[in-house]
Amino acid sequence: MEISPTFAAINPATESPLPGQFPEHGSQQVDLAANAASEVAKSFRHTTPSKRSQLLHAIADCLEEEREAIVARAELESALPNARLNGELSRTTAQLRLFADVAIGGLWQDAIFDTANPNRQPLPKPDIRRQNIALGPVAVFGASNFPLAFSTAGGDSASALAAGCPVVVKGHPAHPGTSEIVAKCIAKALDSHALPQAIFTLLQGTSHELGQALVTHPKIKAVGFTGSIHGGRALFDLAQQRPEPIPFFGELGASNPVFVLPHKMEANPALLAEEYLMSMNMGCGQFCTKPAVVFVTQSKASDEFLRLVREGISSQPGQTMLTAGIKRTYLEQSEIRAQQSGLTRTQSTSQQGVPAMVFETTSKEWRNNPQWQEEIFGPQSIIVLCEDSDDMQSLGAGLAGSLTATIHAEEADHPIAQNLLIDLEDVAGRIVFNGWPTGVEVSYAMVHGGPYPASTMPASTSVGAEAIKRWLRPVAYQSVPDALLPSSLQQANPHKVRRSIDGQ
Amino acid sequence: MEISPTFAAINPATESPLPGQFPEHGSQQVDLAANAASEVAKSFRHTTPSKRSQLLHAIADCLEEEREAIVARAELESALPNARLNGELSRTTAQLRLFADVAIGGLWQDAIFDTANPNRQPLPKPDIRRQNIALGPVAVFGASNFPLAFSTAGGDSASALAAGCPVVVKGHPAHPGTSEIVAKCIAKALDSHALPQAIFTLLQGTSHELGQALVTHPKIKAVGFTGSIHGGRALFDLAQQRPEPIPFFGELGASNPVFVLPHKMEANPALLAEEYLMSMNMGCGQFCTKPAVVFVTQSKASDEFLRLVREGISSQPGQTMLTAGIKRTYLEQSEIRAQQSGLTRTQSTSQQGVPAMVFETTSKEWRNNPQWQEEIFGPQSIIVLCEDSDDMQSLGAGLAGSLTATIHAEEADHPIAQNLLIDLEDVAGRIVFNGWPTGVEVSYAMVHGGPYPASTMPASTSVGAEAIKRWLRPVAYQSVPDALLPSSLQQANPHKVRRSIDGQ
Repeated sequence: MEISPTFAAINPATESPLPGQFPEHGSQQVDLAANAASEVAKSFRHTTPSKRSQLLHAIADCLEEEREAIVARAELESALPNARLNGELSRTTAQLRLFADVAIGGLWQDAIFDTANPNRQPLPKPDIRRQNIALGPVAVFGASNFPLAFSTAGGDSASALAAGCPVVVKGHPAHPGTSEIVAKCIAKALDSHALPQAIFTLLQGTSHELGQALVTHPKIKAVGFTGSIHGGRALFDLAQQRPEPIPFFGELGASNPVFVLPHKMEANPALLAEEYLMSMNMGCGQFCTKPAVVFVTQSKASDEFLRLVREGISSQPGQTMLTAGIKRTYLEQSEIRAQQSGLTRTQSTSQQGVPAMVFETTSKEWRNNPQWQEEIFGPQSIIVLCEDSDDMQSLGAGLAGSLTATIHAEEADHPIAQNLLIDLEDVAGRIVFNGWPTGVEVSYAMVHGGPYPASTMPASTSVGAEAIKRWLRPVAYQSVPDALLPSSLQQANPHKVRRSIDGQ
Repeated sequence: MEISPTFAAINPATESPLPGQFPEHGSQQVDLAANAASEVAKSFRHTTPSKRSQLLHAIADCLEEEREAIVARAELESALPNARLNGELSRTTAQLRLFADVAIGGLWQDAIFDTANPNRQPLPKPDIRRQNIALGPVAVFGASNFPLAFSTAGGDSASALAAGCPVVVKGHPAHPGTSEIVAKCIAKALDSHALPQAIFTLLQGTSHELGQALVTHPKIKAVGFTGSIHGGRALFDLAQQRPEPIPFFGELGASNPVFVLPHKMEANPALLAEEYLMSMNMGCGQFCTKPAVVFVTQSKASDEFLRLVREGISSQPGQTMLTAGIKRTYLEQSEIRAQQSGLTRTQSTSQQGVPAMVFETTSKEWRNNPQWQEEIFGPQSIIVLCEDSDDMQSLGAGLAGSLTATIHAEEADHPIAQNLLIDLEDVAGRIVFNGWPTGVEVSYAMVHGGPYPASTMPASTSVGAEAIKRWLRPVAYQSVPDALLPSSLQQANPHKVRRSIDGQ
């Protein structure tokens, strides 16, 4: 099949093409971009952290200047509400500025020193100084559900640039116009700081070949990906099967289980129902941290909770999904689930967009149907009615890897909460107490990752300051003369990097 | 083929069986060991660092008590000299004690706090505390070339136990008797600290199926491996193809390139020749950090260096290799290389053991024969004669990933050394100046890893304090009440763990 040389974005609300044609890039453009990125990788790695910090601020400044144009185009391409997209743009610039601070802060360098001891017996002890360095050109895959914060200038790009890695982005084909405006801001910021354009390339296209070529290109040294288990696993496999396998940081899916303990349910079932419906429907259920399963125990209060959830879901307004393909998959998968025995469905009666829906089942049926743990992307969630809190607790340890796990508990629930918390440490990257998992803080302590499939690299986070660590590797310098050492390791410590010396 | 239920160790010096029969474990024993390890993983993770520190000291104490028996058996099984094995045992106990300190030190926990701000607009900022936790049962593969320091109670096991991970070791079939004595020490130490035996299991056997079953067992959450590219890559592939892929920390091979710059060569060719021969022949060339390729430039001094190397290699005493299989591969591979055009060989005239050998070639031939970068395990090395230092420098950037890269330089060589150093950052995990790569310090700053194939995880080290990080993953606790937090994150900080708060 001939690939058409350009493509258009589709407005998901009308399913009609939007103005603008975008190039269909393929392996040839990947080759050009990756080779060019590799050519500038050494010099970019050796820029000062403050230079990279200025670059990130300049990108953020430009995104602010272009806010109106970016949000307007993103609204057309994603069908996400204006207020949400404005908030997401603010989050994106905050992320860029956080990584600007992180770059200067120097903790990412992990500077560790061994002091020489020429008199040690039987052998002298050498002077060794280690630090982290940028590992080279990084491929970033834009995600459909966050056209700004997890896309062209999103957290993956921001953290990779902060680390000193050139970036080649595969823009998500659902929002090429948004990606293009954002990429122009990055180009402008590079230009204004006299940095080569090869440090950042946006590739656009609708073919699988584009992403495959990017992940398998020998000059690409790591990958950042947020998306589906199916697509992400295929790319992960390619990255691992290369002659030189490379780290693939993929966030692939999560059910974000929520446990409501009995006393908490007793205290305020109405508030829990309201918050639950808000969290699962946020962004049309297209959040990575959507609570896809909620465990409750049988009681009068949980009867009330269920009644209110059913009532609330029935009157939920329909929303438009990100793309026609995502909508089709949502409707197909939820229809398949609805036809299985052992659960009941209540859904929105709205005639617009896609219907939000809640399934109810029992712990016994849940145990017999492990396939219900698989995330359906969209405004859908399952409530599992447990016999009692022991029954509920026994379900925690068996859950698949997830980005988050949540416990709702009053003080009287703490003995059970304590045991559950220990089980959930094996399940999730973040454990939330008396809150809801949607809303991921961009901060120093955030972990947005977790056991597979939440992440293909469970020791990493894709949100928060520590996300920079994904693009680094350590190098030890043994007995290297001070004048030849990277300045960050020289005795005079010109950048005032924090150092750990002999384990202290 | 039926697998015989036991096997014997072979003395590589005589190629005869040694006393003692060892069980041929298979997938059934893997299943038992991995399930048992998983059963105790949570409680072991929650032991105090000081408890794990005591355990590691107790193992080291027992190894010291059994020193004579261990070294005697290892000598028979490996043909390594007594002095070397005594040194290796000391290194092994030093490693155990280093990780005992590292466990208590608490830096491995990476405790990072975000302070709550309930008044933040538009949304309150939650209290988030993150730390690293043990990721579960770890599989460790004993290496043939360090029957103590990279085997049963070697660096991988020591760091995993320090982290709080149960360990299942696949003992190397070349030294089952040594492994058995060491494993008894670990069993005794667990017992004396009232810890369950399931925290550590030694599995023995000669079949590939044993290792394959271990790497693919669903309860195993990470793998530590040191060995050949061929065997390591096969196990890496299995680990990545699991339904739940797991981190595979494999150290697979390295050429450890050495660059001797012209002024340095000029200064003392005789000393360089002597040190080079010592480094490449150490342990019969069976070190991961053996200098397998040395770059020199044409000069009278390098003529002298080459003459002395040829002279030295000719009179090198023959040594016995670790196993008959390793010997056969060494002889086959070096014979294939010797028959290729473009290089000349000088070898030891000794009639005992295997002959040490040095190949010589030119930079032009080196460029045309990339296969010469492949490590031949044994006392063999290539010297590449470059036209001048520009020619030499241009070879640095194209090298395959390696554990180390070495530069020999006088001050007059520094301008070239500086450029070379920057190129070699992309090649190696450790850059050595005016020394030789063999001899890996077990310290805080050590990096024993590097780009593939030096490591399948280039962001990790398998030697030194930072090796503990391989067995950890971060968990964030959001708004969790103080009483329910792991004690390391509680406000009172009972273990005095160092904390980073709001990026400071």
